[in-house]
Amino acid sequence: MNTCGIIAEYNPFHNGHKYQLQKAKEKAQADVMIVVMSGNFLQRGEPAIIDKWTRANEALQQGADLVVELPVHWSLQSADYFAKGSVRLLHALHCQNLSFGTDNSTDFDYASFGRFMLAHQKEFDKAYKEYDDPTLSYAQKIDRLLSNRYPSFTFSKDQPNHILGLTYTKENASFKQPMRIHPIQRVKASHHSTELTKEIASATAIRQAVLSQKEIKKVVPVKTAEDLLFYQVSWENYWPLLKYKILTSSLSELKEIYQMVEGLEYRLKSKIKEAKHFDELVELVKSKRYTRTRIQRLLCYILLNLKDEAVKNAWQHNYLHILGFSEKGQQYLQQEKKTISWPIISKVGKAQESIMALTIQSDNVYQLANAKITEQNFGKTPIRV
Amino acid sequence: MNTCGIIAEYNPFHNGHKYQLQKAKEKAQADVMIVVMSGNFLQRGEPAIIDKWTRANEALQQGADLVVELPVHWSLQSADYFAKGSVRLLHALHCQNLSFGTDNSTDFDYASFGRFMLAHQKEFDKAYKEYDDPTLSYAQKIDRLLSNRYPSFTFSKDQPNHILGLTYTKENASFKQPMRIHPIQRVKASHHSTELTKEIASATAIRQAVLSQKEIKKVVPVKTAEDLLFYQVSWENYWPLLKYKILTSSLSELKEIYQMVEGLEYRLKSKIKEAKHFDELVELVKSKRYTRTRIQRLLCYILLNLKDEAVKNAWQHNYLHILGFSEKGQQYLQQEKKTISWPIISKVGKAQESIMALTIQSDNVYQLANAKITEQNFGKTPIRV
Repeated sequence: MNTCGIIAEYNPFHNGHKYQLQKAKEKAQADVMIVVMSGNFLQRGEPAIIDKWTRANEALQQGADLVVELPVHWSLQSADYFAKGSVRLLHALHCQNLSFGTDNSTDFDYASFGRFMLAHQKEFDKAYKEYDDPTLSYAQKIDRLLSNRYPSFTFSKDQPNHILGLTYTKENASFKQPMRIHPIQRVKASHHSTELTKEIASATAIRQAVLSQKEIKKVVPVKTAEDLLFYQVSWENYWPLLKYKILTSSLSELKEIYQMVEGLEYRLKSKIKEAKHFDELVELVKSKRYTRTRIQRLLCYILLNLKDEAVKNAWQHNYLHILGFSEKGQQYLQQEKKTISWPIISKVGKAQESIMALTIQSDNVYQLANAKITEQNFGKTPIRV
Repeated sequence: MNTCGIIAEYNPFHNGHKYQLQKAKEKAQADVMIVVMSGNFLQRGEPAIIDKWTRANEALQQGADLVVELPVHWSLQSADYFAKGSVRLLHALHCQNLSFGTDNSTDFDYASFGRFMLAHQKEFDKAYKEYDDPTLSYAQKIDRLLSNRYPSFTFSKDQPNHILGLTYTKENASFKQPMRIHPIQRVKASHHSTELTKEIASATAIRQAVLSQKEIKKVVPVKTAEDLLFYQVSWENYWPLLKYKILTSSLSELKEIYQMVEGLEYRLKSKIKEAKHFDELVELVKSKRYTRTRIQRLLCYILLNLKDEAVKNAWQHNYLHILGFSEKGQQYLQQEKKTISWPIISKVGKAQESIMALTIQSDNVYQLANAKITEQNFGKTPIRV
């Protein structure tokens, strides 16, 4: 069976995602569409608006055949680590194709970029290491390293999908048998657009519309619209917990948190009593050096009590947590499982507690936002469609 | 000036407390009434229904001349440590008399009990040390040690005020110049009574009446009734924070908390997802070995992130935080301050941050219950009446 992978967050699942699934399947001539989806905490340092099972179900209803969770220690990360975790996961599943949306010109040849990366791997690794500066975003590193050396390289910080595409391609190039790349032109030009006049709108625009109780039926499948009526999660739900956590943690406790660098713990302690809301705290703490997204991720690590040591340890113990499958997806998994080297988890019990520790702990916090959110791990089995 | 001390929580201040202040002043022929009052977290492991400044003000309006805070590392304690902290504090203030209410027969001679303790100090210390078993309450220890050796000793666990009286007397006896003891017969027989028919009711009965919105004007001064209309704090206000804290703390982090003994951290971790409310968690965790009060105190230590090392260190650094005074109280403090060896704090600033660290941290959490609760330490000066 020919497989095509998509890396997604589905926050929430909308018509653009449905279109992407269809197009990717077509382009890759795939039998099975595999989705690696962030769990309940997302790349930009925020909780998902709906829980992972509900979002997986939305994707399965609209063409996904197999949805696997990207665990929190890979999902709640800068673009390079996010890409590393998700591309590795697709490789572990023996996925043959990779498709992603791009907001760059279709002229850009990702496959060739991947080959370039492969050819210059050592040189690139060396140069990249020299740029191992926590104050630089992945995008900035890519820009500095490549803009003069790879002629067709284009970069703009207003193209988040293009940047993600570059990181996927880079990671993919590090494998002996890289996946075939199928970039898809995004229908909407801007990721941050707030218009909901056409059938396709960005996830950001949809979340804003939901918060201001505007109509979203035109831009999402019926199931997403229904799910969003049931409950919605946002950072403000966790604000009292975050404030409490920062107020009661000592400086040395905060210092143990993943990505707490350069005395950020002092800055947080000094600002926490002043802030009345989550957004206010981010405004008070962010700077040129520390972008909003970077601070939001740090605040997630604090909220979830994710320590430096624990995150780095989790990277060494990968697994495949299956959120759901179609008949075809299940067949594929059945066929491949003997040669898949990562543990496949289709039901979480005592035996999985250790390997899934960070995700379980994060989901326990996620649940506190709303009593309607049910248990996210123990006893759950894959959704079947 | 002749001084008489009272050890109190005023949760809330009621007519019985007013009567006690009057009677004690009379019996001790005191010019200045000194009150050592628990801050925002109380002996039985619960938050105060109103904040410490408001409660101090209520007492000052009704006859107290000087109100000093009993810091959290002494107030949130079993009876023996609570007594140790508060009696030491009165001695530090050169207080000459000590008065307390008792629910025992007036026949019991506390002063003589104190002398007995003084005479048998070494022997008692040795025996007491042998009983240094965390599973025994102070009352049980007293009972085992003394019932056969001190003829007039009487003990019943239904007499919480008598037990406190014994512990005060024991601690007082350890000083070279003990305070003169003036027990006062309590007007109400039972501490736990829920009737509000007379002018005097127990604090427990008043809190229950407040929670069920019953009339309390008859049993409290006008000021207390007004204050209780403004806001009321209870454990349930902190339940989401406590649940979050236990869910996200590792076993080894919980193990560092003060009084986390004999694997109680495992018990808490295993029950926390089951409990829907604070009371439910207490019910699930308490046992013959661990009483409700003991568990409530432990849950306070967790909520406030009070670590074993920090609490024990705080015991070595005493201070007098002045919450308020009358003119007479201020004169007394002025007169004595040169010979008072503990630091006197009448305004909290940067310089006091370290010595008051545990109280500041606890009050930061206390404030989270209700936006109406104002800053409890920084910049506050004594109330003057």
